[in-house]
Amino acid sequence: MALGARPDGVRRHNRSTLLHRLHTVGPGSRTELAAELGLNRSTIKALVDELAASGLVTERSVEPNGTAGRPSLLVSPRAEALCVLAVDVAVERLTVALVGFGGRILVGRNSPARRGDTEHGVVVERVLAIAETLSLGGLRPVGAAVSVPGIVRRSDGLVHEAPNLRWSEVPLGTLLGDGLGLPVAIGNDADLGAMAEHSRGAARGVGDAVYLSADVGVGGGVITGGVPLRGSTGHVGEVGHMILRPDGRLCYCGCRGCWETEVGEQALCRALSLPEDTSRRRLVAELRGLTEEQVAADAGLAEYARWLGVGVVNLVNLLAPELVVLGGLLAEVPASLLAGVEQRARGRSLVGRAASRAVRIRPAELGAQASLLGAAELAFERVLPNS
Amino acid sequence: MALGARPDGVRRHNRSTLLHRLHTVGPGSRTELAAELGLNRSTIKALVDELAASGLVTERSVEPNGTAGRPSLLVSPRAEALCVLAVDVAVERLTVALVGFGGRILVGRNSPARRGDTEHGVVVERVLAIAETLSLGGLRPVGAAVSVPGIVRRSDGLVHEAPNLRWSEVPLGTLLGDGLGLPVAIGNDADLGAMAEHSRGAARGVGDAVYLSADVGVGGGVITGGVPLRGSTGHVGEVGHMILRPDGRLCYCGCRGCWETEVGEQALCRALSLPEDTSRRRLVAELRGLTEEQVAADAGLAEYARWLGVGVVNLVNLLAPELVVLGGLLAEVPASLLAGVEQRARGRSLVGRAASRAVRIRPAELGAQASLLGAAELAFERVLPNS
Repeated sequence: MALGARPDGVRRHNRSTLLHRLHTVGPGSRTELAAELGLNRSTIKALVDELAASGLVTERSVEPNGTAGRPSLLVSPRAEALCVLAVDVAVERLTVALVGFGGRILVGRNSPARRGDTEHGVVVERVLAIAETLSLGGLRPVGAAVSVPGIVRRSDGLVHEAPNLRWSEVPLGTLLGDGLGLPVAIGNDADLGAMAEHSRGAARGVGDAVYLSADVGVGGGVITGGVPLRGSTGHVGEVGHMILRPDGRLCYCGCRGCWETEVGEQALCRALSLPEDTSRRRLVAELRGLTEEQVAADAGLAEYARWLGVGVVNLVNLLAPELVVLGGLLAEVPASLLAGVEQRARGRSLVGRAASRAVRIRPAELGAQASLLGAAELAFERVLPNS
Repeated sequence: MALGARPDGVRRHNRSTLLHRLHTVGPGSRTELAAELGLNRSTIKALVDELAASGLVTERSVEPNGTAGRPSLLVSPRAEALCVLAVDVAVERLTVALVGFGGRILVGRNSPARRGDTEHGVVVERVLAIAETLSLGGLRPVGAAVSVPGIVRRSDGLVHEAPNLRWSEVPLGTLLGDGLGLPVAIGNDADLGAMAEHSRGAARGVGDAVYLSADVGVGGGVITGGVPLRGSTGHVGEVGHMILRPDGRLCYCGCRGCWETEVGEQALCRALSLPEDTSRRRLVAELRGLTEEQVAADAGLAEYARWLGVGVVNLVNLLAPELVVLGGLLAEVPASLLAGVEQRARGRSLVGRAASRAVRIRPAELGAQASLLGAAELAFERVLPNS
């Protein structure tokens, strides 16, 4: 991108900014939109008229709130006018959906994966088949993105390593792009979860947040200064492999004492004295069934919370989030344990003590859909500036 | 800031971008500047003429490289036309300088601090007195910034905690701003060191870098996607307080096993079997005097390098830097030890193995001036858009 700006780029920039605003925040009156974007009424009118002419928005009159005067025109995104294909490849399921302008899922399919089903060629074939079915109603996606539990090179969608899928150096972006005839972006599941929780979930409006999600592994995504932390290559946020117990268990990555070995799914099983291969369903049921007294008396859970706390203290010292959002299995950790972790994060970290806003720890709001919706956001991020 | 752009903002944006380019990269021909900024020749000519008229740049003819044709005009920043006051408050010394447009130190004063001299009222008085002396030659700074070894709130220059100065909740920005009659920005020393090494040192042109500096404590600054990582409040990068040995030594911050306790000045003394209060000069002399054979045979240094490696692996997994720059005492760690740390960072981190560019570890280039020059950059960052 050139560093200088040209007058002919201004209209384009403003159109793209308005589309982004309508997509993430939702409908707004012309007056609100003008104020938020810092533009005058005639500029907004011209932009909205243009979007309405291309079918991207509708305008309808609404009565102003209890005041007399002209009714204001409410500008709303038309979900069907612009949609993207979003895919979430998880270890235990494959989800494919068409998500419309404004962020609503228009149509989707969720299929459980059986063991062996995650071979990458099989996944590509299934995604292509489901995408074709979803488009039967006439919806045509203009972009696509996929969430993968692994380390991904954003520039071309190469999946370097997705250990729980047993993928290594899979050119997923190219394989799917060729099949779909569309540009396909690939993102890490926790990064995309962070994006979605920031756009539409627990971290809405928060400038600095960390999203942590435990599943088989532990992943993280970082929002800093209101935008996702990505670095130049997108390889950021492998918080699960922060070493914090160097004499601890061996992790598949080759190090000992990665955070994941202390707070991932197996660690949670151990904390509850369950076998490490307990099913997800059973594990969640056990967690939900605990009384506050049981939680308070359980040494295994206290030890689990201690390690959760050490990692969160590190993240607070490194990244100064005002909010830590817990997704996946971490959203099921009993609230009374999390209160202790929150207290530790506030009191035991230099930055936590100094920060003007005490750090909060909250469960995610989007549940299992976070990564799918994040994939949709990633696709829209590339589509909106040219729409 | 308003999200929308207006045509009248374009010229201002381009002027500020050109000033920033000349300040950080140095002189350039009109042709080069036009190409880099993506502007046409007449737009660049108008901008340069404007800057020349206000005395900020000079233009002189240079012969084109071995080609016939018109000589090109080389546009250079005039250092004396615009300067800022930069201050580095360190435990053992106070440095105050006037730094000109283009980044050159025009005049400066470095004074050793004696024990007790770092009381904040004393520091403020000394900075004001030195600043007055430095301005006697007629240079008038238009902005100021201060580097402090502590946790700082950028918005108003409050120093929350600077343990090695024994400062707590010192409103340094306000105190100095009132005295100088200038806006004064305050930054953390390692953050500013990172900025300076990125603008003019070992990390020039690098998109993702971590700057680590050991002194009494260990601080860090992060460059990600080409810009400093700051979050919304500026409280980021307390890498020295990353816990990675929870059963280790007690840190003054209240936690056990912070990285600082394993790789800071005292840890380096222990690694060399020196008393923990060995003078900095002696410690550096010992490090420089080691032969490669001595380094290879020393179990204390091997243990030190191991802990340096654990922390660097964590930073690579979290932030995916392509370069780790070592400043302060860390720049004195023997090269053969660093080679081992680099190897570990590449091979033992998930992200290090996946990254297309293997992470490199290099000593800083700006030495003791890094934080001072970073403070100047911070001041210019605020001054240039309005110059």
